[in-house]
Amino acid sequence: MENFNFYSPTEFVFGKDRENECGKYVKQYGGTKVLLHFGGGSAVRSGLLDRIQNSLNEAGIPFVALGGVKPNPRDTLVYEGIRICREQNIDFILAVGGGSVIDSAKAIAAGTVYEGDFWDFYSGKAVVEKALPVATVLTIAAAGSEGSGDSVITKEDGMLKRGTGSPALRPRFSVLNPELTMTLPAYQTACGATDIMAHVFERYFTNTQEVEITDRLCEAVLMTMLKETPRVIADPMHYEARANIMWAGTVAHTNIVGVGRQQDWNSHNLEHELSGLYDIAHGAGLAVIMPSWMEYVYQHNPMRFAQMATRVFGCQMNFENPSDTALEGIACFRKFLHSIGMPINFTEAGAKAEDIPVLVEKLGVGDGCLPGFMNLTAKDAEEIYKIAANAVI
Amino acid sequence: MENFNFYSPTEFVFGKDRENECGKYVKQYGGTKVLLHFGGGSAVRSGLLDRIQNSLNEAGIPFVALGGVKPNPRDTLVYEGIRICREQNIDFILAVGGGSVIDSAKAIAAGTVYEGDFWDFYSGKAVVEKALPVATVLTIAAAGSEGSGDSVITKEDGMLKRGTGSPALRPRFSVLNPELTMTLPAYQTACGATDIMAHVFERYFTNTQEVEITDRLCEAVLMTMLKETPRVIADPMHYEARANIMWAGTVAHTNIVGVGRQQDWNSHNLEHELSGLYDIAHGAGLAVIMPSWMEYVYQHNPMRFAQMATRVFGCQMNFENPSDTALEGIACFRKFLHSIGMPINFTEAGAKAEDIPVLVEKLGVGDGCLPGFMNLTAKDAEEIYKIAANAVI
Repeated sequence: MENFNFYSPTEFVFGKDRENECGKYVKQYGGTKVLLHFGGGSAVRSGLLDRIQNSLNEAGIPFVALGGVKPNPRDTLVYEGIRICREQNIDFILAVGGGSVIDSAKAIAAGTVYEGDFWDFYSGKAVVEKALPVATVLTIAAAGSEGSGDSVITKEDGMLKRGTGSPALRPRFSVLNPELTMTLPAYQTACGATDIMAHVFERYFTNTQEVEITDRLCEAVLMTMLKETPRVIADPMHYEARANIMWAGTVAHTNIVGVGRQQDWNSHNLEHELSGLYDIAHGAGLAVIMPSWMEYVYQHNPMRFAQMATRVFGCQMNFENPSDTALEGIACFRKFLHSIGMPINFTEAGAKAEDIPVLVEKLGVGDGCLPGFMNLTAKDAEEIYKIAANAVI
Repeated sequence: MENFNFYSPTEFVFGKDRENECGKYVKQYGGTKVLLHFGGGSAVRSGLLDRIQNSLNEAGIPFVALGGVKPNPRDTLVYEGIRICREQNIDFILAVGGGSVIDSAKAIAAGTVYEGDFWDFYSGKAVVEKALPVATVLTIAAAGSEGSGDSVITKEDGMLKRGTGSPALRPRFSVLNPELTMTLPAYQTACGATDIMAHVFERYFTNTQEVEITDRLCEAVLMTMLKETPRVIADPMHYEARANIMWAGTVAHTNIVGVGRQQDWNSHNLEHELSGLYDIAHGAGLAVIMPSWMEYVYQHNPMRFAQMATRVFGCQMNFENPSDTALEGIACFRKFLHSIGMPINFTEAGAKAEDIPVLVEKLGVGDGCLPGFMNLTAKDAEEIYKIAANAVI
């Protein structure tokens, strides 16, 4: 096991109706004037924003509302948020939405108390050392931003997508009410579930030996997702299944399933180019890329994939030929993704095999490699994209 | 799933040599003068205290040392610690040791900034709302106090053992260096492992349905303990096994394996009377009590015990008679405890069957019951003690 720090100071406020306690928690965590940050109209139409505003009013906490966050949240809205926070002396940011809204809120929180351009944090010129306190009311189980210190923002000029991270950006509290996810379309629910499983797999495939506790915790989250996801696809109003998925999504990304070892994240790297070039949801892109990545790299350590196959997917171990078990596990994963409505190849996802050279070029590996479970050269990336282009179940 | 809050703000600083960073972390968390609190001579003899003092010196942080914490930490030393902290204007408490030292440190931290008698918090007269910041350097994987807000203190006058808990008592940081546990005698290592497994089982046996994610996380910790404990008993210097156990012990008690449902804790209740009456280590007492409790209560929900048997101990499910599987799992647990050197009945533990009426009397159930997975009357408790008295493998 490698040395590590684990730090997850967010207070998770989980369950039915908990958004009605927002006012109390903002006060507890020192907020006196709030920027209420959200996305499109669904939070308004569902009455969620009303309930949160009532809670803030009851606690006597004034707020300014700033909606309009888009998927792949933009720098332009971040600048507007920073301006509002400064002009209105706002000292607390409450994000109501999914990963995009939360990431935008984190950028505003860091930028408001920074003298330079907030983009410095995303271009690597500066490190976030302080920020306004952020809290969240989560409406989709997927990105895990409600329990992380990470944020990804897209610069409109050139559509540059860049990330930053800091303990200062970890939410003070996050409200997780599974009921808020019941109205999500099945496709978005499945995309979120795929993202959650990918967050675990990126940490599961490692070259660090002997981290049994982290392996087992990874497998716990994955098995939960295998059980619960088909239930919410079949019955979107299933509270217990929604609740298990929502908490699994947070557990998957606080890093408690990743500590003590090298992690991978190359499926995320390959996917970012896919959803960057086409209008593909991140989770759907991962469904196409991740099993293909697995097929390409499993020979690097077939026993690790056989472990996944037997422990997570319940395959029988083939002791004479572990690679068969490994491949069976990968096939199970792809079948599972297909069963919940995810695309499994370029055609289903709306991507084109003839664009593979463009995808590889945009990856920017050059003569180097993407480090990970298996270091990937540009040629390796090309082969993985080719598998993804033509995958069948 | 029931509504819950999960809050674990402690920064865990895990790995080899990390105690040398104490000075840096004390400074980071605002300490300017430290009470260095520890137990007997092993921390001195091993050179651990020297290394920590060097680290504090290098960071320019003055400290006062207060050793002498005993197992079942006493109120008398807490009063002395409070006096020292007040007289010397100490603003940070660093506990070096196991659960007893950490619990004592928490009591001093709360008592120093409280105008009344610190025992008010333990007698239920007052609630801890603030405390000096506490941090820990853990030397045994067992109690989980390094990641919890709980503390148990014994009042010497009458040997009353009482507990309290508060978010304010959660350590700011906890250093977990598995090397520090390598010199523990095998018996203490096994007692710690038993305590860790018990912390999980107390949360595993619940009447709340449909908390798959928490079930799976419980099972992850238990399977890790089954793999790693025999390895450290056979080879005390096995770093990787020690590391897995140490982190599993912390994960077992931050409550991440317990959220969203009713918990039990009656094995702990029954055990407290055993180690209260005799000189039995807490873990050893749990080894005697917990499988006996399981045998007595399994019929309340045989399928839950069959789940434990198949998922944790790898038993084959008997679909015609699940109770057989349940009993097989319980037998596996008792055999495992015996294999790591734990006592499994009163005789092996040094307790006497003829004292059972005394144990039941001290439990103080009267005509009521101990609420839990199965509510226990005094008669139930008596029957469980009887099973424990005569258990065989």
